[in-house]
Amino acid sequence: LLAAAVPLAAQTDPLPSWNDGATKQAIVDFVTAVTTEGRPDYVAPADRIATFDQDGTTWVSHPLYGQALFALDRVTAMAPDHPEWKDTEPFKSVLSGDRIAMAKFTEKDWMEIIATTHAGMSTADFEAIVADWLPKSENPVLKRPVTDLVYQPMIEVMEYLRDNGFRTYIVTGGGQEFVRVYAQDVYGIPPEQVVGSSIVTKYATVDGKPALMREPKVFFIDDGPGKAVGINLFIGKRPLIAFGNSDGDKEMLQWTTDGPGARLGLLVLHDDAEREFAYGPADGLPDTKVGTFSQALMDAAKGNGWIVISMKGDWKRIFAFE
Amino acid sequence: LLAAAVPLAAQTDPLPSWNDGATKQAIVDFVTAVTTEGRPDYVAPADRIATFDQDGTTWVSHPLYGQALFALDRVTAMAPDHPEWKDTEPFKSVLSGDRIAMAKFTEKDWMEIIATTHAGMSTADFEAIVADWLPKSENPVLKRPVTDLVYQPMIEVMEYLRDNGFRTYIVTGGGQEFVRVYAQDVYGIPPEQVVGSSIVTKYATVDGKPALMREPKVFFIDDGPGKAVGINLFIGKRPLIAFGNSDGDKEMLQWTTDGPGARLGLLVLHDDAEREFAYGPADGLPDTKVGTFSQALMDAAKGNGWIVISMKGDWKRIFAFE
Ligand SMILES: [Ca+2]
Ligand SMILES: [Ca+2]
Repeated sequence: LLAAAVPLAAQTDPLPSWNDGATKQAIVDFVTAVTTEGRPDYVAPADRIATFDQDGTTWVSHPLYGQALFALDRVTAMAPDHPEWKDTEPFKSVLSGDRIAMAKFTEKDWMEIIATTHAGMSTADFEAIVADWLPKSENPVLKRPVTDLVYQPMIEVMEYLRDNGFRTYIVTGGGQEFVRVYAQDVYGIPPEQVVGSSIVTKYATVDGKPALMREPKVFFIDDGPGKAVGINLFIGKRPLIAFGNSDGDKEMLQWTTDGPGARLGLLVLHDDAEREFAYGPADGLPDTKVGTFSQALMDAAKGNGWIVISMKGDWKRIFAFE
Repeated sequence: LLAAAVPLAAQTDPLPSWNDGATKQAIVDFVTAVTTEGRPDYVAPADRIATFDQDGTTWVSHPLYGQALFALDRVTAMAPDHPEWKDTEPFKSVLSGDRIAMAKFTEKDWMEIIATTHAGMSTADFEAIVADWLPKSENPVLKRPVTDLVYQPMIEVMEYLRDNGFRTYIVTGGGQEFVRVYAQDVYGIPPEQVVGSSIVTKYATVDGKPALMREPKVFFIDDGPGKAVGINLFIGKRPLIAFGNSDGDKEMLQWTTDGPGARLGLLVLHDDAEREFAYGPADGLPDTKVGTFSQALMDAAKGNGWIVISMKGDWKRIFAFE
């Protein structure tokens, strides 16, 4: 109660890695509007839902998604048991480190790599494999473990929202069980608040004990329209605020901001080649094919009043280690 | 802290609708074991997960599941727009109130009724239809709305668990979106803590606005082995305690009690023909085909140390209105 009576400037800044400006102010104004009792847009804590895309929104997704790095490393780790891979694509290109061939992998190539590296074990074994890999992982350009490459301004927004009674969710096109392994440590988000893509799991008895076995078959794709479907399926409530960075987040933002009362949709634009990466192709940025922010999405943002976060202009600091 | 120092008998009884005895004591002992810091089986609040089957475990499922009553009432409500149903099965039997024919409905008949009554509208419209129906609903034997026919002892257990830092989930073979409509009011359980069966939903634009359309196609069956799969998919943590009542809960209890540390599996046995219904066929109770508690399940309960709750012996009061 006391805090509410003190002007914002006199309080500790909840978003120190954000530059002062319209974007930061819009976030603070939104949170104030929906959390101040008596305001017309006040929302009870139980309905304060915030959703965050992951790749390119809360952590680095260039030059490859973190989970793709995991899959490629797994191929290398599994290769001794698969001598035939030396002569079989797509494994051959992975093992020989042929970046040009890998850049041309089709969806089918990737599905084969995912099926081989993500299925055929229990959920418990998969979690252990991911947990073992994380500290050894390395982004090939930034030369750091993937879990270091988290955007500090987004961590601050998550904490700021939670401090204001929001429940924060990851809503990712990436693997739900992959992200759940580190979401608590990295984002402060528990497993039950990670919504993602998944493969079929089957209940089985292994060595006399129940196990959930991961099968090489797609169950749910939490991307594009699937993000709105996934939010409804897993949360059953419409978010008040949603963060994304690419065309695959359009429907999540539409679904979020179409709700009644104050809503906020935000998109991270990677326009900082010096401190991170620059890609779009919106606004004439390079078209890199990973995490596409198209001009059509930029137009939709303008039409819908979504806020475009400029990494270059809005973020004082990008990584915690800076 | 004070409460912990006071002997249980001196405190307000958290389970007043339960008779004193081994079952009630086992629940209290379990909760004490996992919530008392310093005890070997202590579990942090974030991992205190409790799961409850619904039909026959938390509310009446005889002579028909609540959701089946809804589906049949919907056929009647929709009939004026479907004159052809007068001569088409399975609708003809529903509309003529032919109980004997309805009792013989095949899985395919029910699927057709579910597809017709549960799909072809948006999730928002479906919720409104269910909310409108609930107060008008009537159990054909007990002559009360379905939401009156909730087991008071289970409501007390849910509250007792929540008071002790547990998160309570419904894990039902019934429709997730159906149960979510009333779970908060009836059980104090929010939508995101209802795991159930679901049909496919598709993101669409209707009248210029985003909508999630329910399609007549099964997406996920949260029953039998599917309950362990659903728990992993939606919660990502293994329950400490699980309540069920029928063969479809066996894998949920296996998955729960196979975890390390103190775990508890409990099954409600409907052995009280006077105050509710009596069915099994375990222990020589009548075999009614709805909510089957088989002798095999009874044997599994004995083998695994699961507790069988006798409605007749363990419950002082069954319904709040008594
Ligand atoms: Ca992304
Ligand atoms: Ca049941």
